[in-house]
Amino acid sequence: MSGILILGAGRSSSSLISYLQQQAIRRQWQFTVGDYSLEAATERLAPSGYGTAMRFDIQDEAISAAAIAKAEVVVSLMPAHLHLLVAQHCLRQGKHLLTASYITPEMSALDAEARDRNLLFLNECGLDPGIDHMSAMQLIDSIRDRGGKLLSFESFTGGLIAPHTAPDNPWRYKFTWNPRNVVMAGQSTAKYLLDGRYQYIPYHQLFRRITPVTVEGVAYEGYANRDSLKYREVYGLNDIRTMLRGTLRYQGFCSAWNVLVQLGCCDDSYEMELVDTMTHRQFMESFVTHQHRSIEEAICDTLRLQSAGEEMKRLTWSGLFSNDLVGLKSGSPARILEHILLKKWTLDRDDKDFVVMWHRFVYEHQGRKHTVHAHLTSTGSNAIETAMARTVGLPLGIAASLLMEGKIKTRGVAIPVSRDIYVPVLQELKALGIELVEEEVV
Amino acid sequence: MSGILILGAGRSSSSLISYLQQQAIRRQWQFTVGDYSLEAATERLAPSGYGTAMRFDIQDEAISAAAIAKAEVVVSLMPAHLHLLVAQHCLRQGKHLLTASYITPEMSALDAEARDRNLLFLNECGLDPGIDHMSAMQLIDSIRDRGGKLLSFESFTGGLIAPHTAPDNPWRYKFTWNPRNVVMAGQSTAKYLLDGRYQYIPYHQLFRRITPVTVEGVAYEGYANRDSLKYREVYGLNDIRTMLRGTLRYQGFCSAWNVLVQLGCCDDSYEMELVDTMTHRQFMESFVTHQHRSIEEAICDTLRLQSAGEEMKRLTWSGLFSNDLVGLKSGSPARILEHILLKKWTLDRDDKDFVVMWHRFVYEHQGRKHTVHAHLTSTGSNAIETAMARTVGLPLGIAASLLMEGKIKTRGVAIPVSRDIYVPVLQELKALGIELVEEEVV
Repeated sequence: MSGILILGAGRSSSSLISYLQQQAIRRQWQFTVGDYSLEAATERLAPSGYGTAMRFDIQDEAISAAAIAKAEVVVSLMPAHLHLLVAQHCLRQGKHLLTASYITPEMSALDAEARDRNLLFLNECGLDPGIDHMSAMQLIDSIRDRGGKLLSFESFTGGLIAPHTAPDNPWRYKFTWNPRNVVMAGQSTAKYLLDGRYQYIPYHQLFRRITPVTVEGVAYEGYANRDSLKYREVYGLNDIRTMLRGTLRYQGFCSAWNVLVQLGCCDDSYEMELVDTMTHRQFMESFVTHQHRSIEEAICDTLRLQSAGEEMKRLTWSGLFSNDLVGLKSGSPARILEHILLKKWTLDRDDKDFVVMWHRFVYEHQGRKHTVHAHLTSTGSNAIETAMARTVGLPLGIAASLLMEGKIKTRGVAIPVSRDIYVPVLQELKALGIELVEEEVV
Repeated sequence: MSGILILGAGRSSSSLISYLQQQAIRRQWQFTVGDYSLEAATERLAPSGYGTAMRFDIQDEAISAAAIAKAEVVVSLMPAHLHLLVAQHCLRQGKHLLTASYITPEMSALDAEARDRNLLFLNECGLDPGIDHMSAMQLIDSIRDRGGKLLSFESFTGGLIAPHTAPDNPWRYKFTWNPRNVVMAGQSTAKYLLDGRYQYIPYHQLFRRITPVTVEGVAYEGYANRDSLKYREVYGLNDIRTMLRGTLRYQGFCSAWNVLVQLGCCDDSYEMELVDTMTHRQFMESFVTHQHRSIEEAICDTLRLQSAGEEMKRLTWSGLFSNDLVGLKSGSPARILEHILLKKWTLDRDDKDFVVMWHRFVYEHQGRKHTVHAHLTSTGSNAIETAMARTVGLPLGIAASLLMEGKIKTRGVAIPVSRDIYVPVLQELKALGIELVEEEVV
């Protein structure tokens, strides 16, 4: 009897595990969930009880080898830097591997070996990266199939909170993914292509140079990802004139976040002094000269803000000017800011998160220009059954299931841009209520 | 007969070499100048012909060992990263070493060994670092000797051009030191102490948060150095309330330079695309979205500048909007900017450079607060006999000469903050016309 091994039973694993558990029950596959915490693994199996929970530690060679030996397909939700260790086990033992993480150069280097052993190491198969690749490729291929030529491709995704959640939160934002990544977002020059010209946005301009996006009547703003051109070749868009990929926030987020960027609060390059006795307010006071005036006045003067404006409202709501102790012994500005923001930006039990993805394509077909928008939204049920866990976990679970059934032929180190993967995965996602809605804009 | 070896006969070596050559003639010391280019070394000895020129290559063990063996004191003006190799030779052979460069951790690590062998490895003995250390310590020690308590110490230095040089140059600036360091200046968070509070300025705010300074009726602006607190302990200022060290430019420089910083033109973290066919104007166009308007308009809009204002005047004068080819095959923004600026910012033969240093001390004495300013200015003769070469080279030459005469007792890896060094060096500098003028401000 063939089996699936899921590694990592953390907060983003709920949908993946319950989907694959159902598939395993139906098809009589062995089903194992491993986590560093046996308790976490056990808890995730609870709903139906089918399968085996185990304590898994990738640093323990014997445990890892034994667990992976029993599986045919391994799905890793562990921290990204551990995927390579799993991949090496999979190579030695001839097992397929799936992750939702970005391919690293070290992972890429395993491509030839994986092909030799007839294995698929499928990465970037979550939401972003994941559904963005698959939905974009489906549209790109369909435009090409009709003889059209793509001129412009823009794609934005955001993990936010649902409209009625936390109504007093002026940011309309809580952490639904790794908080550190949110604080560190964009800390290198963004590169993209606009109308045939290479464009570069330095970090300190990133949250000012936003792209307005409207989805289902709601206004969002998008800031550019680090390297929008990373997938130009993979998508086969070598002649494209405009290519921009980015992240969505609700309107107003970026100009408030920009205040933190301008002040240097997101810097992770040095340790601050006297952190153990520091208050939130003292943290803010470290970044602007404020002799003879309050820190609020100093920030408004320095950055030309209205004292009763939207930016200051958000910063104040986050407690950044309060006299509460930070509560850390040491840290960089980025670590301290993350710690302060977690106090207000952690999902409450009944909070619903919200995922939104939006593509805009411009293509030429029979001498005419066409613009197509496509979007996806998904709302979570609560702080555990999140839209983020669903949209990251289900593509992984579906791909794993298809692979078990022998329905995916791609081999080597890959991302989900080939038809044998994206067609059936998007079809099953649609059946599960996750679908991109396309519309031609006139 | 004991001897001096000078390593490096580049553009900053003229004053050092002619000063030490005179001392060597008077005292009958052997005198050798080594450079990777024998021609450069020979040319520097030309004025009096005394001494030996040699081809020196620190990568060649035999040449290096033989050259250093003959000397008692070695002065290195070579690129900073090569000092350590020289230091290792000096340790093995029991020779003193002097440099004008910042002490690295690797150099520091040689302290115990140097002491064991009764050697002085004196670093940071040029202008800044160098004369700034010595003049500051002289004032600090004299305030302490009188029973005063230092509350605040600010110190700024700049290498500029003289008032009548290049009258059409609106920046009032040319490169008189390593151009790359000018383009890369300030690319990490600046840290200082203001009124008892630690303050941090991120790079993108650095050229906005300036300190106005007036010296001999001329208005300058100072931006903060990376770590103003680096010398707090060395200077014995552990209780100080304000400590700020920085760099001086003529008024108006910083807000124009800030445009380049804001646009991301000084970024050295990535290689740009299509550099081989890039014009100056296209370089600028890479950093701002300018559809349906000129790049000049786009920059003014984005950064809220007047189109006929001082900032745009400077950028335009530098040829940044011209259609000239950059003339490089590849490069980061910082490399390309340096290359463009060199076309206008290189000293012409008869240009005179200008060095300015300014300290402000506040101290308490017998219950009263006092403020003391001290400043130094120096004007070069031409593009070779620069003020920069004089003020960097003479402190090194004087210290080397004192060491040859047995008048310096400090040993180990050091900077010139002890009285046995700074008293005689400053005295001789004064005799050579380089002197800080002090005045108490009422």
